[in-house]
Amino acid sequence: MTLRLVDALMSTEPLAEIFSDSSVVAAMLAFEAALARAEARLGLIPASAETAIAAAVADAEAVDAAVIAQRAPLSGTVALPLVDMLRDRVRAIDPAAATFVHWGATSQDVTDTALVLLLVRVRAVVTSDHARIVDALRRLSNEHAGTVMLARTLLQPAPPTTFGLKAAGWFAAVSRSGTRMMAAFDEACVPQLGGASGTLAALGADGSRVAAELARDLGLPDPGAPWHAHRDRLASLVAACGVYTGALGKIARDVSLLMQSEVAEAAEPGGPSSSMPHKRNPARCAMVLAAATRVPGLVSTYLAGLPQEHERGLGGWQAEFSNISSLVQATGAASAASADMIERLDVHPDRMRANIEATGGIVFAERALTRLAPVLGRERASRAITAAIAAAERESNGFMKALAADPEVRGALAPADLANLTDADSYLGVAEPFRRRLLGDK
Amino acid sequence: MTLRLVDALMSTEPLAEIFSDSSVVAAMLAFEAALARAEARLGLIPASAETAIAAAVADAEAVDAAVIAQRAPLSGTVALPLVDMLRDRVRAIDPAAATFVHWGATSQDVTDTALVLLLVRVRAVVTSDHARIVDALRRLSNEHAGTVMLARTLLQPAPPTTFGLKAAGWFAAVSRSGTRMMAAFDEACVPQLGGASGTLAALGADGSRVAAELARDLGLPDPGAPWHAHRDRLASLVAACGVYTGALGKIARDVSLLMQSEVAEAAEPGGPSSSMPHKRNPARCAMVLAAATRVPGLVSTYLAGLPQEHERGLGGWQAEFSNISSLVQATGAASAASADMIERLDVHPDRMRANIEATGGIVFAERALTRLAPVLGRERASRAITAAIAAAERESNGFMKALAADPEVRGALAPADLANLTDADSYLGVAEPFRRRLLGDK
Amino acid sequence: MTLRLVDALMSTEPLAEIFSDSSVVAAMLAFEAALARAEARLGLIPASAETAIAAAVADAEAVDAAVIAQRAPLSGTVALPLVDMLRDRVRAIDPAAATFVHWGATSQDVTDTALVLLLVRVRAVVTSDHARIVDALRRLSNEHAGTVMLARTLLQPAPPTTFGLKAAGWFAAVSRSGTRMMAAFDEACVPQLGGASGTLAALGADGSRVAAELARDLGLPDPGAPWHAHRDRLASLVAACGVYTGALGKIARDVSLLMQSEVAEAAEPGGPSSSMPHKRNPARCAMVLAAATRVPGLVSTYLAGLPQEHERGLGGWQAEFSNISSLVQATGAASAASADMIERLDVHPDRMRANIEATGGIVFAERALTRLAPVLGRERASRAITAAIAAAERESNGFMKALAADPEVRGALAPADLANLTDADSYLGVAEPFRRRLLGDK
Amino acid sequence: MTLRLVDALMSTEPLAEIFSDSSVVAAMLAFEAALARAEARLGLIPASAETAIAAAVADAEAVDAAVIAQRAPLSGTVALPLVDMLRDRVRAIDPAAATFVHWGATSQDVTDTALVLLLVRVRAVVTSDHARIVDALRRLSNEHAGTVMLARTLLQPAPPTTFGLKAAGWFAAVSRSGTRMMAAFDEACVPQLGGASGTLAALGADGSRVAAELARDLGLPDPGAPWHAHRDRLASLVAACGVYTGALGKIARDVSLLMQSEVAEAAEPGGPSSSMPHKRNPARCAMVLAAATRVPGLVSTYLAGLPQEHERGLGGWQAEFSNISSLVQATGAASAASADMIERLDVHPDRMRANIEATGGIVFAERALTRLAPVLGRERASRAITAAIAAAERESNGFMKALAADPEVRGALAPADLANLTDADSYLGVAEPFRRRLLGDK
Repeated sequence: MTLRLVDALMSTEPLAEIFSDSSVVAAMLAFEAALARAEARLGLIPASAETAIAAAVADAEAVDAAVIAQRAPLSGTVALPLVDMLRDRVRAIDPAAATFVHWGATSQDVTDTALVLLLVRVRAVVTSDHARIVDALRRLSNEHAGTVMLARTLLQPAPPTTFGLKAAGWFAAVSRSGTRMMAAFDEACVPQLGGASGTLAALGADGSRVAAELARDLGLPDPGAPWHAHRDRLASLVAACGVYTGALGKIARDVSLLMQSEVAEAAEPGGPSSSMPHKRNPARCAMVLAAATRVPGLVSTYLAGLPQEHERGLGGWQAEFSNISSLVQATGAASAASADMIERLDVHPDRMRANIEATGGIVFAERALTRLAPVLGRERASRAITAAIAAAERESNGFMKALAADPEVRGALAPADLANLTDADSYLGVAEPFRRRLLGDK
Repeated sequence: MTLRLVDALMSTEPLAEIFSDSSVVAAMLAFEAALARAEARLGLIPASAETAIAAAVADAEAVDAAVIAQRAPLSGTVALPLVDMLRDRVRAIDPAAATFVHWGATSQDVTDTALVLLLVRVRAVVTSDHARIVDALRRLSNEHAGTVMLARTLLQPAPPTTFGLKAAGWFAAVSRSGTRMMAAFDEACVPQLGGASGTLAALGADGSRVAAELARDLGLPDPGAPWHAHRDRLASLVAACGVYTGALGKIARDVSLLMQSEVAEAAEPGGPSSSMPHKRNPARCAMVLAAATRVPGLVSTYLAGLPQEHERGLGGWQAEFSNISSLVQATGAASAASADMIERLDVHPDRMRANIEATGGIVFAERALTRLAPVLGRERASRAITAAIAAAERESNGFMKALAADPEVRGALAPADLANLTDADSYLGVAEPFRRRLLGDK
Repeated sequence: MTLRLVDALMSTEPLAEIFSDSSVVAAMLAFEAALARAEARLGLIPASAETAIAAAVADAEAVDAAVIAQRAPLSGTVALPLVDMLRDRVRAIDPAAATFVHWGATSQDVTDTALVLLLVRVRAVVTSDHARIVDALRRLSNEHAGTVMLARTLLQPAPPTTFGLKAAGWFAAVSRSGTRMMAAFDEACVPQLGGASGTLAALGADGSRVAAELARDLGLPDPGAPWHAHRDRLASLVAACGVYTGALGKIARDVSLLMQSEVAEAAEPGGPSSSMPHKRNPARCAMVLAAATRVPGLVSTYLAGLPQEHERGLGGWQAEFSNISSLVQATGAASAASADMIERLDVHPDRMRANIEATGGIVFAERALTRLAPVLGRERASRAITAAIAAAERESNGFMKALAADPEVRGALAPADLANLTDADSYLGVAEPFRRRLLGDK
Repeated sequence: MTLRLVDALMSTEPLAEIFSDSSVVAAMLAFEAALARAEARLGLIPASAETAIAAAVADAEAVDAAVIAQRAPLSGTVALPLVDMLRDRVRAIDPAAATFVHWGATSQDVTDTALVLLLVRVRAVVTSDHARIVDALRRLSNEHAGTVMLARTLLQPAPPTTFGLKAAGWFAAVSRSGTRMMAAFDEACVPQLGGASGTLAALGADGSRVAAELARDLGLPDPGAPWHAHRDRLASLVAACGVYTGALGKIARDVSLLMQSEVAEAAEPGGPSSSMPHKRNPARCAMVLAAATRVPGLVSTYLAGLPQEHERGLGGWQAEFSNISSLVQATGAASAASADMIERLDVHPDRMRANIEATGGIVFAERALTRLAPVLGRERASRAITAAIAAAERESNGFMKALAADPEVRGALAPADLANLTDADSYLGVAEPFRRRLLGDK
């Protein structure tokens, strides 16, 4: 396990592994090896140097993460101690080759490209959980196309909707947000190679060819130019993760509210309590909402760091690695917990219907007004309905009884229409067409 | 002037006007009028009702913003008092029509659609300033394709770059960010119509046709379904504004640093000081950086509000109107100030060259190393260069003199190559190809 | 009304008035007048100049806020155009006096001191609402010292607590947070006078005496030295507002959850809906939660702006005025809405008890375990309780029946103890001592 | 090393160790052991149970952090799996004792108290670095009481100040912020013990005595009542860390600006570059500014999570552990880097004086105006000074020459006064009294 206790609710084991020391070192070494290959291929460094570098990179003991972490504050970067250690190892293999380690590159090139390589792996993990989420939501929506339930606005009961429409709304927002996030991953995951000043001057006229070759070698698109102090692509990814986590948070909030014992319309698998044997806690909702609480601040940090000085920032850039690591892990933790939560969601249609009935019909007051006002005038209709609402608080089914007892209401509505006023299934408007559109709106 | 003093650096007059009371009221009334037209056209309300509603909407005194503001806290929305006042006005015109005001709609429908209508106007304002920015940056980059200057990393001098490349980097980041922001405006600017529960139940089977007709009438795309508690589209817009403002902030930071009297490589038009007659303050940079400081927190607020409860949020939604208004105004203020700042930027190529020379050649240490290390070995080359850097601190042009005095260096480099070591114009790598690519990367 | 529609849920009329143009102008002029008085008293400017400045300041048309707002972006401050206009007015009264307007001061002196003067007024408004809140909470707690209700953890039912303890917890957190906030107001509300560079050089050796006199004149403590780029006192105030608003948000969240129709244990006065005649919306809770959503991002903006450059910041400072105005207004709006909400809170003890009973006794599972485990051993006790919890889902009062049917349970507990297991009133632990301590913990 | 690469610039080894798995486990076990001791002392659990629990806690293999991390998502807390494992271990030692593990407590009790125990250790680490910072700043200020330098406002030169005053301003802000932060640590570091519902019902009438005894045993003050969902004390600590880090960030920003090669007035020890042999990077400033960039977003997250539901929050609470761990580590990293940076700061008084002179005297324009305006009138004086400023751009020392060439100026000022106009040492106002006050303002 690389997942630490302190982050146990804000990451997952696969994501924690991606940002572990060994993974970070491997990503940085992958950059150095690919750079050497690209430069050797273009004749900028000797083939023997590339061979020695490759051998050193393949050597598990070439660099010691603990030493890097210790030295990083001296130079303000983890790249410099890594390069120094790699160079020492290369020198031990082939002294002449040591000169060509990190040839023409700068610390930010290796750090940024390593970050990108890690993000490519994050994308794969999140993609898989995202697919589970949208599949499960689509299934839930289709299964419950006709399951009526209370809509709730400002946490108060409103006229009915269907659980199918509710799930379709979740689906559409998460699908859109996931699509945007994946596009942002693709745009952001491009390598960095600019050398000391972003001109690749140390590589002479071949700089852009090296950069193209490096990208090809790493299996990434060539951005065409370095982007040291221009972080809008990563910022857009960070922001898209924020929107995505928010969309998941909305589902978790709804589920946790539906799971209240007084509501009991749905339940996630849940988890136990250390003190209360009877409890089934919405543990996955808690994790998703925790991530949705944590991520916005991380997004603002990233954005606040954007105005980076000249060709390499002082402060803004150095804040990124730790921040973006926290952020994508929280996003991925939310995605994994959401997938588990949604796939195993229990839905209780009977309780949904019972909760409509428990309102005594008053959630159909709008319906009554819509039917009565054109006939009786709005004032008269309102008076009748207000009286009926008051009656509903005094006796069961009082809303309908009071309306039925009002002669003007009886005059305005046929008995069947009157009886139908509190029938949920016939007051769903275009819930179903909306639902189908939302499912199609991937 | 509608721009208030307290917001004078965080908005502009055109943007403040968009969020003024009269403009907000007009947008809400535009929704109510368009809704009535759509419903009358589809036969859901009498034509006479539509006529009366149109007349009331056209009546400048139909609603009183001060009364709305006063009553808004009672219901937690500005929509309800507006609808009440409009209904009263309609009743005065045609009592029977009063019933059909706001027919089938809910408070959030009018509030959200009004917000969207205001954002459409914001988009137009920002688009215009954005066009000025990218035009001016492209021009600056082309004019200064060959203007050499110090690159600076972590605020320390690095090997030279060109101002053309610097401006092209600004251009590319702002162009990309602007393109994303405009796309986000387009995606987010869709009307809201869902009625009490998001099913448009009060409109029977015609709900989605009314929604489509409403969208057409307002000149907006039909989103296909309401989006009351699903705010990912607006969140993406908000986030895109954050990235865009950050990209502008990076330019402002760079310009303000270049404008320091000790650097003096560029200057924005500037403004006066209340106490110091000699000063030319980077007032526009200050405004842009202020916006770049303010916007990230507003983005985080928006994201934190995303997990909205069920069919209408409690708290998260109500936080949005004020927040998004602040945010787009700050974005637009940054855009306007950036356009002024960049269009009128003074660039001082002579000073740029002088600042390279003032480093005594030491910024070419990497170049020297790159040339010497393959011949002398890295250790020997490093020693020679370290000695030369130390010499540069003692005497003018000491770097080159010290290298030239080192017999091994003289043996490794031809005299012309040696003399060329501190020539900035020949150590620009692929700055020019990178520059051209960045300008093409709109 | 100065409260704008766009801020109608994020401010109140008294607070909006404090940040209105006329109020901001008055505060800035109050600084200039006080400065002139202090300087005349110390003989640094002629008495006649002070007289002319006082006359100009008293002249309602001395400055035009619209012109200031228009010119502010040119200099990056509202102070400079205000001073220019004031000087013109003084010149019209006494040409020789114009020289001594703003004598020795800088833009930031007037802007920061004006902000402080406005904050002093905000403090008074918020103090009044805070007093209402703590009084009402203390009263609620005392009234409901014995009102049992479900505790709820992770939104699931837990063993009972009392509403008195719940209200006391709210009281203690809000009291502590209010005390800290008021102390932070007091620490932050000190005038600013440093002149161009923070040395008051233009006032010669008398600078600190002028500053002391200015403070005395304005009725504020003398900070001893200017604090232009050192904003920790205001930052602490801003942060304390954030904590306070969060403490209010916690109450609003709880009340809105208690007010759900399925729970119905408490209700705020509420407000109407535009589409649903039956609804009583938790409008005040919505406002408080909206503020609690909005304020954290504003706090982060303030903190992000703290690293201000040298003797006057570029960007960080200019972001403050608008930001802090939004923040204290949101805080005050939350305070006002909370006072209304809590003073008029309806509490339903019967429903609280009914909701305990509706759990079928399973919230006493911990109690049963605590009694049975020492006798039967934990494993055996757990099995009995798990079976009883399962029974509770099948039949009413199943939990107790199943326990009573278990011979080992009957052997372990006397009949009276067994019968008492699901009695809420005898399972409140030290709720009452805790409650009293919390009320004493002001 | 427990410091991970991904956090290498956002923590330090001692702080990373505090939040390592073994440290977190030890803190949670310390709670369980102290609870058992308190309960045994009060006769609530058998002495033999306490003995077994103590033995299990002392057993290094009692719990496996990896297993806890793996299981934590199932229950949404690390406490539950820890308690389960501890109970298993106790059972192996003394089966009857297993019942009394975690007796009467809940997951949040152990998690929150463990967090507090870790924060106590953080406080000690930060206190030590803070003492180094204020000592070094006081020394710097005293050494440079008479070192004149340019003040700079909006990054433009202003009349002179002293480095002593600048350092005293840093000192005062950091001292105040440190004092507040330490007080916030003290207020926040109180144990949590409330049991399932915050009433300690499982402990009968002895709950508050157990809580008091637990506090005494852990060496912490007794808060008097549990604070599960009331997090204002921790929020105030978090916010105080934000203000403190901002105050450090201001120093780092100033130093990094002074260290620019074109300014060269001060330099931190600095670090090397991976590509540029000549560079001395402000690595410690970068770390401090990175922390000052990262922390505000973490503060906003904490504040946004404050409105926690009922007796235990769902999402807000679960977001805290990871967040507060990141936040105090970033604060401590800033503190450690600041101490190193300030203790070893090189100050260059000669360069400071040279930079004043390089402005050609124009930074004394305010001084000239202050002297001339009372004699010549403001308009005439302004014209003379504007001409002199223009002259300063054309020739060296042009400002003074132009003034001296103006007959009215010569008539207004005695030759000695005129000559003195650009003498920095005599235009420092009350810099020294302000400096001494700031140093006394601890």
